[in-house]
Amino acid sequence: MRRDELVRIIDHTLVHPAATQRQVTRVCEEALEHGFGCVIVNPVHLSLAAEVLKGSPIRLGTTAGFPSGANLSEIKAREAAAAVKAGAVEIDMVGSIGALKEGSYLDFRKDVAEVVRAVGQGVVVKVIIECPYLTDEEKATAAKLVEAAGAHFVKTGTGFAGGAVPSDVEILARNVGKAMGVKAAGGIRSYRQAVELIAAGATRLGSSTSLQILAEAPSV
Amino acid sequence: MRRDELVRIIDHTLVHPAATQRQVTRVCEEALEHGFGCVIVNPVHLSLAAEVLKGSPIRLGTTAGFPSGANLSEIKAREAAAAVKAGAVEIDMVGSIGALKEGSYLDFRKDVAEVVRAVGQGVVVKVIIECPYLTDEEKATAAKLVEAAGAHFVKTGTGFAGGAVPSDVEILARNVGKAMGVKAAGGIRSYRQAVELIAAGATRLGSSTSLQILAEAPSV
Repeated sequence: MRRDELVRIIDHTLVHPAATQRQVTRVCEEALEHGFGCVIVNPVHLSLAAEVLKGSPIRLGTTAGFPSGANLSEIKAREAAAAVKAGAVEIDMVGSIGALKEGSYLDFRKDVAEVVRAVGQGVVVKVIIECPYLTDEEKATAAKLVEAAGAHFVKTGTGFAGGAVPSDVEILARNVGKAMGVKAAGGIRSYRQAVELIAAGATRLGSSTSLQILAEAPSV
Repeated sequence: MRRDELVRIIDHTLVHPAATQRQVTRVCEEALEHGFGCVIVNPVHLSLAAEVLKGSPIRLGTTAGFPSGANLSEIKAREAAAAVKAGAVEIDMVGSIGALKEGSYLDFRKDVAEVVRAVGQGVVVKVIIECPYLTDEEKATAAKLVEAAGAHFVKTGTGFAGGAVPSDVEILARNVGKAMGVKAAGGIRSYRQAVELIAAGATRLGSSTSLQILAEAPSV
């Protein structure tokens, strides 16, 4: 995959708890320079990022209930709605992993649906299911529930629990319809990893070391 | 320190993202059996924990903006207020670590103050400053800001970034007044660690392996 194709499906990401405004500005400038499809920053940095990216085609995103997901749905929904107000058009929310583990599937689905409803039409919702904590069967179930709840992407993980692997991406891709996106995130640091995850079915990648991935990608 | 003294200052904790209702019930039952001073669970599990602990003297707590802290203050405050409504009398919030790192001290302090105001009188607010990400000078500054903002405890970390160490507890204790509490949390798994942290100035400990700590404590 060529660099100019790859760059468009990478979410250039900075969601470290200790991220500063200066680092956020730099990440946005890198996105402008290289043409990343999307920039993801912490909720507290959205206004700053929106200002730096203003007038560009780069999409802006943030997180909701990140990275634990064990928050009340009402709070995740409020956080997502506030993010949209601050300029976000993509929300990477964390699903209720405990609900999934205990088989409370209706709760898991309602949690996602509440965020989808709160952000309204035109905003992309990606749902992190934290694969490193799940069995393969739970991953498949989660993917189906995410789709049924009206979200747009199912996403492998936060990166805090472990890295993205092709086998997880395959499971997610196999259990959702063609219109659904599959985002791989967590520990993606090389072009080779990126290509393997895309081959497995990922339609979007999240990375904090996107420049390194790009540097390794062929330009033609 | 005797077991019956130690048990009262331990926050028996289950805040894993994948924690289930069954595990929450067990943790609450352990607290009832052993007499822990406080139980801390995820926001989504507060109602269940309140039900199990009903009628006991055990305090119930939860988190806000956990474990990233990079959320809007408004969202942390709403999460904390919702928690109090669901039965929490202790809130372990995560401070705005990025604000601290970049020197936005007023923002850091206002963020804490907004949560303190939202929960109202009688609710204990502990502020996690995530020591593993901070210099010693930043830890000292953070402790002072937490106290100035009206919170009741300054807390070493979430556990996600690294463990609690006596030297950090000493810095925090040295930089707050006698009325302020100092909570150590993260990787505390033995009686020996517990005693060292208390000797360094900790007045509260958080642990997910509290039973093991207790088992090693002398009964007389």
